[in-house]
Amino acid sequence: MRRLVWIFLLPLLLGPGQAASEGIGSRVFVVERASGSLAVYDYQARKLLPKRITDLGNLRHATMIFSPDLRYGYLATRGGKVSRIDLQSLERTGEIFTSQNSIDNAISQDGRVIATAEYVPGGVTLIDAEDLHLLKEHRATFEKDGKTFPSRVTGIVDAPGNRFVCVLIEGGEIWIIDASQPGFPIEHRIPTNAALPYDAMITPDGRYYVVGHLESDRVSVLDLTKPEAGVREISLRDPTLKYDKNAPVKLPHMASWAVAGKWVFVPLVGEKRLAVLDRSTWEFHRSIPVRGHPVYAVRSPTEREIWVSFSGEEDDAFVQIIDTEKLEVVDTLEVGGRIYHMDFTPRGSHVLVSANRDNKLVLVNAATRRIEDVQTLESPSGIFGVWRAFRIGL
Amino acid sequence: MRRLVWIFLLPLLLGPGQAASEGIGSRVFVVERASGSLAVYDYQARKLLPKRITDLGNLRHATMIFSPDLRYGYLATRGGKVSRIDLQSLERTGEIFTSQNSIDNAISQDGRVIATAEYVPGGVTLIDAEDLHLLKEHRATFEKDGKTFPSRVTGIVDAPGNRFVCVLIEGGEIWIIDASQPGFPIEHRIPTNAALPYDAMITPDGRYYVVGHLESDRVSVLDLTKPEAGVREISLRDPTLKYDKNAPVKLPHMASWAVAGKWVFVPLVGEKRLAVLDRSTWEFHRSIPVRGHPVYAVRSPTEREIWVSFSGEEDDAFVQIIDTEKLEVVDTLEVGGRIYHMDFTPRGSHVLVSANRDNKLVLVNAATRRIEDVQTLESPSGIFGVWRAFRIGL
Repeated sequence: MRRLVWIFLLPLLLGPGQAASEGIGSRVFVVERASGSLAVYDYQARKLLPKRITDLGNLRHATMIFSPDLRYGYLATRGGKVSRIDLQSLERTGEIFTSQNSIDNAISQDGRVIATAEYVPGGVTLIDAEDLHLLKEHRATFEKDGKTFPSRVTGIVDAPGNRFVCVLIEGGEIWIIDASQPGFPIEHRIPTNAALPYDAMITPDGRYYVVGHLESDRVSVLDLTKPEAGVREISLRDPTLKYDKNAPVKLPHMASWAVAGKWVFVPLVGEKRLAVLDRSTWEFHRSIPVRGHPVYAVRSPTEREIWVSFSGEEDDAFVQIIDTEKLEVVDTLEVGGRIYHMDFTPRGSHVLVSANRDNKLVLVNAATRRIEDVQTLESPSGIFGVWRAFRIGL
Repeated sequence: MRRLVWIFLLPLLLGPGQAASEGIGSRVFVVERASGSLAVYDYQARKLLPKRITDLGNLRHATMIFSPDLRYGYLATRGGKVSRIDLQSLERTGEIFTSQNSIDNAISQDGRVIATAEYVPGGVTLIDAEDLHLLKEHRATFEKDGKTFPSRVTGIVDAPGNRFVCVLIEGGEIWIIDASQPGFPIEHRIPTNAALPYDAMITPDGRYYVVGHLESDRVSVLDLTKPEAGVREISLRDPTLKYDKNAPVKLPHMASWAVAGKWVFVPLVGEKRLAVLDRSTWEFHRSIPVRGHPVYAVRSPTEREIWVSFSGEEDDAFVQIIDTEKLEVVDTLEVGGRIYHMDFTPRGSHVLVSANRDNKLVLVNAATRRIEDVQTLESPSGIFGVWRAFRIGL
């Protein structure tokens, strides 16, 4: 049978000197920490774009969020600055200083409001995502011996119902802020009980807010569907192991937990294991031994695998892959020195890895586990794909 | 404390007559069935774009997929035509006829290959996503009494590992095609046992492929992590209900199942209930009674709610909302006559609803459940947001 095949091409409507528009869906912003800039990688085209975004300030712990219409990315830096990047032109089109020292930012579920969590002065600032104008400042304080003290704020995330959730470090209190109401009220203030909450995360379904505490093996878990019930404290210790009571306890890096299938995988800083918790009860299930001290645990969109990175020169070039059904390591890959960040492409075909010491961004095929592309970058760290616009809590 | 707030604006680099680029992340393509066109709605800006894409042919059962870089959408129509749409300019920039009668299309996990499932001639055609050139045709046939007959193919989806999965209607066979290998081999051919598979779906994690059979209350479930184990047959009947053995059994519309939390919600055509199955065992758990004959069940990205639409003039203007923990209807909304399609915005803030008889596209706030925008369209049906680019199986 004959088959009619024809293609017609759009006449070139662009003027001289203008490059054809390229797709922005596969653009990935990579923090180049040492130079204070963002490089832009197109993982589908497998090339670095010629333009870098520079002069962004101190990019330690920089985080980037994206508007739902994919017009803008917003980079928050430690120096208190939020920079707005046009995702098409890659120009910086605005900036605002919200504090002297910020730690995190988030964009509301409806994409209209950006919130930053701040250390100095401690609080939360809400700004308009469209024009960056200031909407509201919530100063964070706490009372002690009849006096009022300032508190640092951290772990800000977006949550369902157009809410923001964050935690006061010295105040020991979780805030739920309603970003749909005039004045952006603090709707709930929930004590965390344990001292010094220091970092937090939200599960990908937006249901649980989990707070880590300094020098504690316990975390506080808040079910956001029942905030009035308060937090539950959960231990990350393995009851079958013996612990030296004098050894310091290190807080796991909260942003790095992976939720897959019915489990939560927690990389434990200072121990050569991941803790596996039950996703619905938050009970400790078992440990998974790994080759070194784990830092990041990243889930595949298929939820079949967790990829784990490590600290320490002997281990930090390796990734171990955990099967989420077998609950054991099924593969070990050597990718590049001092892996700082990993992220799966949205449908899980590939994994992007930044190898900071080796100045490399590496694209690994998730099925064959072979390296398919390597780009040279200057001390790369955080990796932010634009598809984070479409995920709760990112 | 003083706070430095300043914004600088990008100088307008665009020439005369060119509109400023608008974000494509919130663009939604809506099939206008009667006129054979696609309307484009920006749910973030809450406006219909002035441009329509017309002359697209028979848009009954049209499906649209998107490239991972968000350069293109691909519309497959019953007439066997795949049209490529530039997502920025909204121009049609190519088309190919792959058959005389197609039913479905899918894009590979790596975004490089498009596959269409075809009735006439029966088979699967693989085309290059970049330039639409023909890569491979797999003719579908089956043997009976020593003779070879053609088979229709349906239910094509992308699956992890860069695979496509589809099912042969007369052949009664599931195919797994490897889109990474030269020649795109059919890697597995798995019999479905029960007669006349007619439609299929894949779970959002890409793990289970579920096939519905004509005139049967049973579906075949294939675990794609263990294809060699073959299919399991699952009944959708409620063992606590009595059935008239002479009454015809209707196949539930497969594309409309919702997977949320630990459950699968199946809207049963011809019964006033949803069946709730266990997501890991696929055992029947219970029924949820609803006001009419359910058609679509759509999950919130939070997995807390399922929104259900209905057939029949008495019910088809209503949506019922099911709580996925309580497993019961918690709300009923009247949205518009003959609801054909619903989809949540990516972070779950809103639901888009097409009301075909009322010629309306409706934007409902998922938290307040209030209608926030209504647009007039000509007999709207399928709703395809560009964020489908970032989801397995869509």
